Amino acid sequence: MAAESEQTAPIPIVGGTGALGYGLALRWAKAGLPVAIGSRSAERAGEAAARLREALPEAQCEGLVNEEAAARGPVVFLTVPFRAQSENLNNLRRALKEGQLLVDCTVPLAAAVSGKATRSLGVWQGSAAQQAQEMVPDGVTVVSALHTVSAPILGDLDSELDEDVLVCGDRKADKAKVAGLLEAIPGLRAVNAGALEMARIVEQLTPLLISVNTRYKCHAGIRITGLPSGDHWAK
Amino acid sequence: MAAESEQTAPIPIVGGTGALGYGLALRWAKAGLPVAIGSRSAERAGEAAARLREALPEAQCEGLVNEEAAARGPVVFLTVPFRAQSENLNNLRRALKEGQLLVDCTVPLAAAVSGKATRSLGVWQGSAAQQAQEMVPDGVTVVSALHTVSAPILGDLDSELDEDVLVCGDRKADKAKVAGLLEAIPGLRAVNAGALEMARIVEQLTPLLISVNTRYKCHAGIRITGLPSGDHWAK
Repeated sequence: MAAESEQTAPIPIVGGTGALGYGLALRWAKAGLPVAIGSRSAERAGEAAARLREALPEAQCEGLVNEEAAARGPVVFLTVPFRAQSENLNNLRRALKEGQLLVDCTVPLAAAVSGKATRSLGVWQGSAAQQAQEMVPDGVTVVSALHTVSAPILGDLDSELDEDVLVCGDRKADKAKVAGLLEAIPGLRAVNAGALEMARIVEQLTPLLISVNTRYKCHAGIRITGLPSGDHWAK
Repeated sequence: MAAESEQTAPIPIVGGTGALGYGLALRWAKAGLPVAIGSRSAERAGEAAARLREALPEAQCEGLVNEEAAARGPVVFLTVPFRAQSENLNNLRRALKEGQLLVDCTVPLAAAVSGKATRSLGVWQGSAAQQAQEMVPDGVTVVSALHTVSAPILGDLDSELDEDVLVCGDRKADKAKVAGLLEAIPGLRAVNAGALEMARIVEQLTPLLISVNTRYKCHAGIRITGLPSGDHWAK
């Protein structure tokens, strides 16, 4: 799906020492893809990379400060908590280059201001992803994804994944690149949820699943039913 | 799940001549449950009931004006378009009695004001369901459900259902009654999505699925993954 050169470039994960970012790094490394774990602290990034290599000795991974990590590959994942999204995007302004994709995974949970995790904050731009689009340098495009995959499940290689990732973005070709990386992780299917503005809705699925998790004591995910067979992302 | 007497009382469907309401009537009648199809017009309600009996000669169904239909059973389904929700709730003020449940299925799609079906309107109370809760008589409780099940699929008995219905409400016992009726339809599983305020999120799943349907040319639904086995609704 993605071009050959892109598939072999590392996948930068800004906030890669957090539960979601590290879980993704682990799954991609397991799938044989190189990753660049970013953190505000080079030391913590290095520790996470060492931990990953301990879990998977064959892993291709580096630990770097976020700005350096972000330069390592064409599709950059932003996996920080919402309260740190804006600061991280400011810091990335010089690191991100025209033509890169930024995959925003942040969720405006009310927990960011000590509210309930089943409630969310209103973001003036419509969604965290649209806020990201406003903040990235010209020529960098935002795609929104990964709001419904449980970080604890991702981070536990003994847990099998069997769920969908809803992907929002304004161009199908961009979403297809992201879909290629997501579907490199066994058990994940990328579903085209529409334009970037649909992130308003998809970001709300996190508090919804948190509400379900509370009631069922589980790590719930989402599956879209009724889709036709065949590869939606193929050209 | 529901008491014996409640299971044998008809299921009132306000707006039962619409695609969602009629689809539900068809599925419940097929499952052997009696239904009361409501419409603003007694004539159109009667026609829909006749059409149902033609499709399913064994169906137990009546066609009545909405206010009469609503009095027929303890759990009333409101399946009208959002632009008609408020008018219908006004008309039902004298018909609904203390102890009844009103299952609100309306979705504040921007289509109500000639906007896109992938966009929604902000409802001051938070959601259409919370607006309904504000408008029903004292002692009537609102539960929110059925935003993600495709009306064309429901209305086609040759189509197999295999998806979830997210149910929001403030008391589990109320949601369990609704879940019992929903799960009487083969292929539907009722999932407890939390308090009524979560309808803010669940109502947004309709425009999300409309966006998916546009891209995939399908009738998508939702399935929650990772739930434990066992009957969540059993006491």
